[in-house]
Amino acid sequence: MSGKTVRRKVTRISLDGVSPDHRVTLRADVLAAEEPLGIRIGGEAVNLTMRTPGDDLDLVAGFLFAEGIITGGADLAEIRVCDGTACGHAGHDGLGNIADVRLAEGGGPAPRRNFLTTSACGVCGKASAAELFVRKSFDLSQDHVVTRASLLAELPDRMRDAQRVFASTGGLHAACAFTADGDLLCLREDVGRHNAVDKVIGWALRSGRLPLSGQVLLVSGRASFELVSKAVLAGFPVLAAVSAPSSLAAELAGENGLTLVGFLRGGSMNVYTEPQRVVPG
Amino acid sequence: MSGKTVRRKVTRISLDGVSPDHRVTLRADVLAAEEPLGIRIGGEAVNLTMRTPGDDLDLVAGFLFAEGIITGGADLAEIRVCDGTACGHAGHDGLGNIADVRLAEGGGPAPRRNFLTTSACGVCGKASAAELFVRKSFDLSQDHVVTRASLLAELPDRMRDAQRVFASTGGLHAACAFTADGDLLCLREDVGRHNAVDKVIGWALRSGRLPLSGQVLLVSGRASFELVSKAVLAGFPVLAAVSAPSSLAAELAGENGLTLVGFLRGGSMNVYTEPQRVVPG
Repeated sequence: MSGKTVRRKVTRISLDGVSPDHRVTLRADVLAAEEPLGIRIGGEAVNLTMRTPGDDLDLVAGFLFAEGIITGGADLAEIRVCDGTACGHAGHDGLGNIADVRLAEGGGPAPRRNFLTTSACGVCGKASAAELFVRKSFDLSQDHVVTRASLLAELPDRMRDAQRVFASTGGLHAACAFTADGDLLCLREDVGRHNAVDKVIGWALRSGRLPLSGQVLLVSGRASFELVSKAVLAGFPVLAAVSAPSSLAAELAGENGLTLVGFLRGGSMNVYTEPQRVVPG
Repeated sequence: MSGKTVRRKVTRISLDGVSPDHRVTLRADVLAAEEPLGIRIGGEAVNLTMRTPGDDLDLVAGFLFAEGIITGGADLAEIRVCDGTACGHAGHDGLGNIADVRLAEGGGPAPRRNFLTTSACGVCGKASAAELFVRKSFDLSQDHVVTRASLLAELPDRMRDAQRVFASTGGLHAACAFTADGDLLCLREDVGRHNAVDKVIGWALRSGRLPLSGQVLLVSGRASFELVSKAVLAGFPVLAAVSAPSSLAAELAGENGLTLVGFLRGGSMNVYTEPQRVVPG
């Protein structure tokens, strides 16, 4: 099992607010770890969730309870998190990302409710978690768009200005499609950040704009694995987030040629992958 | 279809930072709307998602694309969002929360991947969305615990102090169980806020502490419908969030006797439901 954080090289760009110059440094950054955890009951895969490693037994027990599969500790005989050597499943990736649950006698699963289901274990036998999720529709490596750092730094303000609702509730995530010159093409909001991104992609699809080559996707919150996956699918070459990315978000972005920008606020930003698309000035 | 925001009465408590007195006012607050949207393809329910109403056609198109069910606009013949009068489904709740999708000829659904699945439409015929989700395990109305406003106001700092990882990544959500006297019982972290709460509940389940009567659940981010649902299931009488709750979170809390506190920061807070558990001083 891995830790809660992952170190990664990042290009830090700080604008000084006075001149168009900016300072670029390469340094190590610490990201919150995000990895898949597959849950099996009696050998049958019932769930695959993205989570930060640690307290996995608590996570599994809490998930089973919240989903109504168990009603208390007595329903639970054992939870074992596979370390990849002893579980005996061929092709296990060795990350310890499978939880095998044994229910107590007579405490069989209650009828299933809504939760993430997978048709297979989903983790065993894969070279990387990234493989699981991304069906690459477009080849981002051919997208040679560049955008200026100083322009990127202005986008969160432009998004907030456009977000009338946000001002009144503080409760809505936003996602925007911008051109590389900073023109706002589309703003969508939702209590769920994934929904806000789905709405932007749906707008593009319905208006015949896919793939979104040469455009920038800006999100108001953090950048998770899933948001990177959606950005890649829609053909965005750049995903910029106001807050932190997860480790898997950065990994997936790197594997797919996506420029991932995080902590885009206060006149500075971290570029985690493909920094050549962000130029000085 | 409803709007993006909902007005609701809230008890605002502001601590002045000098004396133990505080100012309590009853006022109207504006919450981000959260409502379920069921998606059907050819009449078959494939998904139920919680979302903010608005741009529903974009959301559905983006979701179908992101899940690989359609690969472009040509696969989509029609999306119709039911207004509850014309759809002909008995018992429709009239909220316009069903999207009926017709795929183009020959563009049948690709093999399904992980997404929220329901065995039925899930929205039609229900008196309220709340009915769908909460299996009340414990009766919160019998929990007469009270907590002081000044003590509640200190909890986010206590949580952050305990969050060593947060300081280094800025990327982890936290959830804590506190006693009504402010003692920290359990801190769990995750990139996913639902996971952080599941970990706290799993900790309680595994250590024989369910229901969490008389305790306070604190979360670092927003309070969604789903977090309220989990708090109720685990028997917490109080859920406090550093950021905004959604409309459905407040509605569900009210229906289940949960005290919901939001915007708990900077020496003030909003109490959305069951304010009798938060006392002056």
